[in-house]
Amino acid sequence: MSKVHNYSAGPCILPQEVLQKASEAVVNFNDLNLSLLEISHRSKDFVEVMENARSLVKELLEVPEGYQVLFLQGGASLGFLIAAYNFLPMGEKAAYINTGTWAANSIKEAQRVGDIVEVASSKDKNYSYIPTGFGIPNDAKYLHFTSNNTICGTQFKQTPISRIPIICDMSSDIFSKKIKVSDYDLIYAGAQKNMGPAGTTVYIVKESALGKTGNNIPAMLDLQTHIKKDSMFNTPPVYPIYVSMLNLQWLKKNGGVDWIEKINNQKADLLYNEIDRNSLFEGVTAVASRSNMNATFVLKDENLTEEFNKAWTAANISGIKGHRSVGGYRASMYNALPLESVQVLVDVMKELEISKG
Amino acid sequence: MSKVHNYSAGPCILPQEVLQKASEAVVNFNDLNLSLLEISHRSKDFVEVMENARSLVKELLEVPEGYQVLFLQGGASLGFLIAAYNFLPMGEKAAYINTGTWAANSIKEAQRVGDIVEVASSKDKNYSYIPTGFGIPNDAKYLHFTSNNTICGTQFKQTPISRIPIICDMSSDIFSKKIKVSDYDLIYAGAQKNMGPAGTTVYIVKESALGKTGNNIPAMLDLQTHIKKDSMFNTPPVYPIYVSMLNLQWLKKNGGVDWIEKINNQKADLLYNEIDRNSLFEGVTAVASRSNMNATFVLKDENLTEEFNKAWTAANISGIKGHRSVGGYRASMYNALPLESVQVLVDVMKELEISKG
Repeated sequence: MSKVHNYSAGPCILPQEVLQKASEAVVNFNDLNLSLLEISHRSKDFVEVMENARSLVKELLEVPEGYQVLFLQGGASLGFLIAAYNFLPMGEKAAYINTGTWAANSIKEAQRVGDIVEVASSKDKNYSYIPTGFGIPNDAKYLHFTSNNTICGTQFKQTPISRIPIICDMSSDIFSKKIKVSDYDLIYAGAQKNMGPAGTTVYIVKESALGKTGNNIPAMLDLQTHIKKDSMFNTPPVYPIYVSMLNLQWLKKNGGVDWIEKINNQKADLLYNEIDRNSLFEGVTAVASRSNMNATFVLKDENLTEEFNKAWTAANISGIKGHRSVGGYRASMYNALPLESVQVLVDVMKELEISKG
Repeated sequence: MSKVHNYSAGPCILPQEVLQKASEAVVNFNDLNLSLLEISHRSKDFVEVMENARSLVKELLEVPEGYQVLFLQGGASLGFLIAAYNFLPMGEKAAYINTGTWAANSIKEAQRVGDIVEVASSKDKNYSYIPTGFGIPNDAKYLHFTSNNTICGTQFKQTPISRIPIICDMSSDIFSKKIKVSDYDLIYAGAQKNMGPAGTTVYIVKESALGKTGNNIPAMLDLQTHIKKDSMFNTPPVYPIYVSMLNLQWLKKNGGVDWIEKINNQKADLLYNEIDRNSLFEGVTAVASRSNMNATFVLKDENLTEEFNKAWTAANISGIKGHRSVGGYRASMYNALPLESVQVLVDVMKELEISKG
């Protein structure tokens, strides 16, 4: 079979060599003649996986001393609550930027803990831009934002300037570009975009910032619980962590975050240039806020929909239908999507324009 | 390589044919030419997996009308909190039976929500028996117990008689024997024993019992959230759910819970009979409380330890070292462990006795 150009918004494309190794481990892991799925998480072999995965995160993101890396469960949706419980004293104030569905959900959960000030929002234009020029109350305990909006296709191009600690949900762009971890007290991210398969969530947390809320935090939601137990308070999601480790090894071997950031820029430039150049298409989001991960665009003439859909399907492209709340198309260009796949899509767009004369 | 007799306490042995299919899906799922790990959880192909998994639970356990089946994250440790939030109005009373480490942890988490009455405990004898003959306060909102103690090797042989609703953590014996779901308002169980690999937790809940606490429950901890979204409120742990589905298909194909219960009884009888017969060994737990899943035993003469360890290692047995809090040996005989593996262990025990004349 010919290759599928997989633009899925997440869970999403992973490198072929990662999938190959991941498949082998299910029948015979580390030549133990046992599956990775049927050994104890306390075994030497799995403890090594966990420690490798944590070290790779530190190495690839140049995590400074004093930060801890954890692989937990529950996705960013549980992270919304974990962030608030661990950093917001009950009833006190935190500042949130609302740039989409997930940001709005993070606000809703944090409101169970304290007083949430929405310091900026792009809801007025269906989340199609990243707000700028807003104030942050000095008495807020932290500023929370979502680095990339997967649904609409917007992305923060730099960390907001803030005098208070920053917490960020980086689910859809972590490991896609260089970040400065010391800018943040907490970074959390569901694995299922650039890190690995669904089922684990990475937390990168400044240890000295924890334990200051006075909140009575349930054990599983307390980051200190998990730090004390080296991310093994209870049985961890073994397989998602293993595949994440393989994927981070792949990233490291190929040149790390610097390397992938260049390629991600190339892919985004290639596609956005075509969206802007091609008379049949237009982008959905503000140019300055365009996401390198998820490019959203529409056909100017909706009557061409069927023809365009046939053309990209014939080119073996999958997963570019837009989210139901936005419509049109969404091309997700996560780390493992090769530049060639973007070229195939761009060619289909060009050919459609040529065929219309 | 010859076969490993895998007695791991969890994550634990899974059927070879399940592992084979699970391995294939990582490179090519449903002939899509895509990995199961890289497709959307909203795709037709994965929605079918989720629905099959939920249906298989209903079918295999004869779940009555009015109950919902969910596949969530966080393990039983998050379940401790979910149970209390969903069933215990803030500050009110619930009854708990303390039969081991996990039961004790369930109490600790529930104490964040209400007033927990420990109606019975076997802590006085290092959790080596299941307590009987205790009273349950009528004004408690529910009775909570842990059906099987994996660490010490005890198991409830019947559901406690109770006039109040019952909640049970069945992590280590669900699907190992027939149960009457209508006895319970909530059953929850981490997958990594008889259901599948680590990374998902099944909830079987009586829908009409929910929504009555008046608690302001965080979205991810509210079972009603997940029911409304057909267990897909956020990205589910795709792979652990898929492998669980394969494993439940294997159970169904072979004869279901009735079939496996007979085999599990045979395995337990074979091993416990040898423990009782063999002059070198003795069991750790009260005979009436012995677990069919985890048999714990010790050498009467510790000086034979090295010799015995060499002998079972040579027989390709793995994972029978006892938990550090109990010592000795623990042979976990989960569903996928064949009777032949138990025979191999029994033979090693017999031979040791013969060699000692």
